[in-house]
Amino acid sequence: MWAELQVSLDPCIPFALPSDEVSRLRGDMIPQPYLIFVGDLPRSNATKTALGVRDWAPEACLAQWRLSPAAVDLGLPDLEPAAAFAAGARSVLLGVAPIGGQLPNEWIPHLVRGLEAGLDLVSGLHTRLASISPIAETAARLGRSLYDVRHSDRSFPVATGRKRTGKRLLTVGTDCSIGKKYAALALTRALRSAGVAADFRATGQTGIMIAGAGIAIDAVIADFVAGAAEALSPEAAADHWDVIEGQGAIFHPAYAGVTLGLLHGSQPDALVLCHEPARREIASYPGFVIRPLEETLASYVTLARVTNSKAQFVAISLNTQGMPEAAARAELSDTQKRHGLPCFDPLRFGIGDAVERIMRL
Amino acid sequence: MWAELQVSLDPCIPFALPSDEVSRLRGDMIPQPYLIFVGDLPRSNATKTALGVRDWAPEACLAQWRLSPAAVDLGLPDLEPAAAFAAGARSVLLGVAPIGGQLPNEWIPHLVRGLEAGLDLVSGLHTRLASISPIAETAARLGRSLYDVRHSDRSFPVATGRKRTGKRLLTVGTDCSIGKKYAALALTRALRSAGVAADFRATGQTGIMIAGAGIAIDAVIADFVAGAAEALSPEAAADHWDVIEGQGAIFHPAYAGVTLGLLHGSQPDALVLCHEPARREIASYPGFVIRPLEETLASYVTLARVTNSKAQFVAISLNTQGMPEAAARAELSDTQKRHGLPCFDPLRFGIGDAVERIMRL
Repeated sequence: MWAELQVSLDPCIPFALPSDEVSRLRGDMIPQPYLIFVGDLPRSNATKTALGVRDWAPEACLAQWRLSPAAVDLGLPDLEPAAAFAAGARSVLLGVAPIGGQLPNEWIPHLVRGLEAGLDLVSGLHTRLASISPIAETAARLGRSLYDVRHSDRSFPVATGRKRTGKRLLTVGTDCSIGKKYAALALTRALRSAGVAADFRATGQTGIMIAGAGIAIDAVIADFVAGAAEALSPEAAADHWDVIEGQGAIFHPAYAGVTLGLLHGSQPDALVLCHEPARREIASYPGFVIRPLEETLASYVTLARVTNSKAQFVAISLNTQGMPEAAARAELSDTQKRHGLPCFDPLRFGIGDAVERIMRL
Repeated sequence: MWAELQVSLDPCIPFALPSDEVSRLRGDMIPQPYLIFVGDLPRSNATKTALGVRDWAPEACLAQWRLSPAAVDLGLPDLEPAAAFAAGARSVLLGVAPIGGQLPNEWIPHLVRGLEAGLDLVSGLHTRLASISPIAETAARLGRSLYDVRHSDRSFPVATGRKRTGKRLLTVGTDCSIGKKYAALALTRALRSAGVAADFRATGQTGIMIAGAGIAIDAVIADFVAGAAEALSPEAAADHWDVIEGQGAIFHPAYAGVTLGLLHGSQPDALVLCHEPARREIASYPGFVIRPLEETLASYVTLARVTNSKAQFVAISLNTQGMPEAAARAELSDTQKRHGLPCFDPLRFGIGDAVERIMRL
């Protein structure tokens, strides 16, 4: 598990949002800190979200709520909802993804108990919380909020294409699930550590849970994807960096449209390409070969320059999980030489001097 | 008005849909023929849809319904809803787009009268018919259907990227509103005239009204655009052509994501580039210069080959409206020579021998 390598990183600086008109478009800030609900699921792919939120937003994670001793242990205090509320928790975060994306029926009374204890609910499941009667009714009765971060019920304007003040970095990839979110988070941390004003802008469910705000960009009506991306990273101070979580891949047979709308609306000054050297084909799409990095870099730059003529790559982020250390280091060094760009594995070896290159832009 | 040049074309052959599982995904066929409602609006940009439907689906247009003698005359018999129903009409088509996309209040009682006469309602306005209480209540009471073709309430699967049998042509463009729909319609007609089995596949509201079916592709949730495009042009006989209406433009700052998702899901064997030589900038986006055709052709082909390695351009369709005839003919001839592709203005001079080139694929 790549995400599990992160426990030793510095505590995460909160990702604050400006409280202006634009934040209305991005939606309400999710009340934090969280009581992370893991149900009865042992450590597995299904508990990745909980681990990601714990690693990247530790200050937002007050306690865990396990229904069984066999459930994954996040290393947080075990609290029941009433005690968690008393200790300051404000939301129950469903940090797990059961197979099929459906909420098990036996969890419903527990989640109702969370609402009764004073906590809002946050979910990244396909099933909308509001579609589950006991949850919807309890929330309505008590005035609690339900956050379905996989869905988007807000409407956005069509993109204007107008340049906004402030600097923007977008992570892009050669495939889905290849490290775009964690590269963006690591870059945000590194920029802040270097004294640069920077915000992580979340575009997917786990990212939104970590940041407490964001837009599930793939859930937006297609016409408004670039407009939503413009709303996500509003005007900012000239030396401020928005570090935007990328989605999909430009050569992905199903999701490239999302990728391109996000690229255009983000108007990135800086791009970071995320890639996994061991991956030869698009995941779940056998026969769809991952293109050479040269071609991928060139295509992203051409398309990015539609809305920002100065868009350029500043680094390549490699996901070297599963490679022996020597091979991983050789791959980083080779890639760096071949493309003339700083190359790092942010989760394994840190991001090195790439931040200086970004700051020089 | 470019669309108005079409009155002399052959009657349109109906665009039949297969009645299989896939047509479920594409939605119900809209009941035809239409009683075209033009309200009290004189001939203007607002009545373009009515004129387009009349020109391209004459067999689907039984009569017109005008509230004032000053309203645009489509050259169809004037009928009130009851008489139109008796004569065989099955839907009232709102063939006009009042400023702002809102339905004028004074039209509502008339449309209710249409429902009471036995007719369904079809609208391309932003306002949903179902959101207007008297209309929604009357439709529910009488069991009539409301078709809001600008919206999409259906859910689609994620694209599979799998190759489907049959041939596909997609019209793509250097901008929006540049001739993609009419090029696709003209190509469908020409293929059928040459004895080729071909269907027009509509992706926008006017196209859907003409075809009586289709998917408003820009209204689909972003994640499912390519999947919707796959559903729109299902498996077909090996020598059958789907001629798919393109949307947006790959270098458009707001809509390129829609364009790319549609391109990937369509898996076109053949592409036709639609362009207006007199247009220098993306409409409504000052400063966004339309790129050279060489670059545009190359970008579309590169991206199309993600899902169809044999994708190629077969023609360029120029919208020469406003150019003197000699200049228009010279432009067509120059463009043809420069790019080595048949070049036509389908509405002004016909499409020439491009169909033969398509049939050779």
